[in-house]
Amino acid sequence: MSAGKLIGVGVGPGDPELMTLKAARALANADVIAHFAKAGRASHSRVTAAPYLRADVAELPLSYPVTTELPKCSDGYHDAIRGFFDDAAAKIGAQLAAGRVVAVICEGDPLFYGSYMHLHARLAPRFATEVVAGVTGMSGCWSAAGMPIAQGDDVFTVLPATLPEAELARRLADADAAVIMKVGRHLPKLRRALACSGVLERAVYIENGTMADAVTMPLAAKRDDHAPYFAVVLVPGWVSRP
Amino acid sequence: MSAGKLIGVGVGPGDPELMTLKAARALANADVIAHFAKAGRASHSRVTAAPYLRADVAELPLSYPVTTELPKCSDGYHDAIRGFFDDAAAKIGAQLAAGRVVAVICEGDPLFYGSYMHLHARLAPRFATEVVAGVTGMSGCWSAAGMPIAQGDDVFTVLPATLPEAELARRLADADAAVIMKVGRHLPKLRRALACSGVLERAVYIENGTMADAVTMPLAAKRDDHAPYFAVVLVPGWVSRP
Repeated sequence: MSAGKLIGVGVGPGDPELMTLKAARALANADVIAHFAKAGRASHSRVTAAPYLRADVAELPLSYPVTTELPKCSDGYHDAIRGFFDDAAAKIGAQLAAGRVVAVICEGDPLFYGSYMHLHARLAPRFATEVVAGVTGMSGCWSAAGMPIAQGDDVFTVLPATLPEAELARRLADADAAVIMKVGRHLPKLRRALACSGVLERAVYIENGTMADAVTMPLAAKRDDHAPYFAVVLVPGWVSRP
Repeated sequence: MSAGKLIGVGVGPGDPELMTLKAARALANADVIAHFAKAGRASHSRVTAAPYLRADVAELPLSYPVTTELPKCSDGYHDAIRGFFDDAAAKIGAQLAAGRVVAVICEGDPLFYGSYMHLHARLAPRFATEVVAGVTGMSGCWSAAGMPIAQGDDVFTVLPATLPEAELARRLADADAAVIMKVGRHLPKLRRALACSGVLERAVYIENGTMADAVTMPLAAKRDDHAPYFAVVLVPGWVSRP
């Protein structure tokens, strides 16, 4: 029996054409395809990967426990999420021990804010692993918008909108270019922080950045404060253009 | 005569397999392929793209003027580089005006620290454009090293090693995860800044990250201070792992 292998496969920002050739091949050749999803929902990345999966491939869905009703800083949340990743790693480990190649479908890039890293950290000490880099969601957004994000000696920062308002404002004032993720219900606070740091006029709001129904507009022109969790705000750098 | 189109094509970090399917198709279907290179040198990205180019495709090499002998902050440097981009945009504009599709080969992602944006800014007001997002060089590096870089609410920062030592130290202390680019002759200063900010033990030094001759080691284990310009240093975040 040959040894199994774990492959984290970045499938990019959503357009199946923005997957790498290496990712498409890894998906086509894997014995087992694993993918994360919320309980009861189809996985976005599974849809992106669909054109490249063999009709008869074995699938291993990994459903997140329903934990959004618990605060993220609570012991309950941490215990539930740790237990989920331990369990998922055990299931995949059994496949690897049986000599199978398991490809884990990852939105964007596997090791950049992705769930795959929890499996990688648990399984890499015991099994062969490979990570196939992918186009990140944020690259997909600024490319679809045709908006240069950073150049030359720009300092570029990725910030979660969950940070306190004063910290967001301080960090935005201190960066040449920024991407703010997880906007959702934090939009009013983020808008104030952008204004406070003097970059509101440069900020661009994007929903579903790489999809046919993408919404892209200057944040200053967005009248309401409703935003989905996965909306992003881009603050382009490259202020002194040669 | 149909209208021409400018396409910025991200070819990824160097491995031709890490190009997207969209990029491979854009290269195969273009009338003209343009690529940046230093005068007298082959373009890295041209080598990456080679497997996907038609044998008879027209090529338009864009050779940077020799300006490394001029300080970057000098008027002479800015004039030379501005003149170069004006001239390159004029050459491509003539092809677009003649109805041709011009694909510009870009290392990594076109709008993330790439030269393509100088052409895009000059030509997008007059011609149809498309940007094909690519895997960045830094994603290629952390993926090849199997090193998770950022997770959850981590603040992630990209810093040029050209910054003054105190500013590097301040910014490194203020980020959860960081990538430092353009290491080269700045390595001794960067090492001091990493030590000062308490993250030297987590820093990983990488040369030729996605190539067969990649060098990956803890920076603390690198004895000398010789580094090529394109070496990167990664400081992974995700300090509290669930």
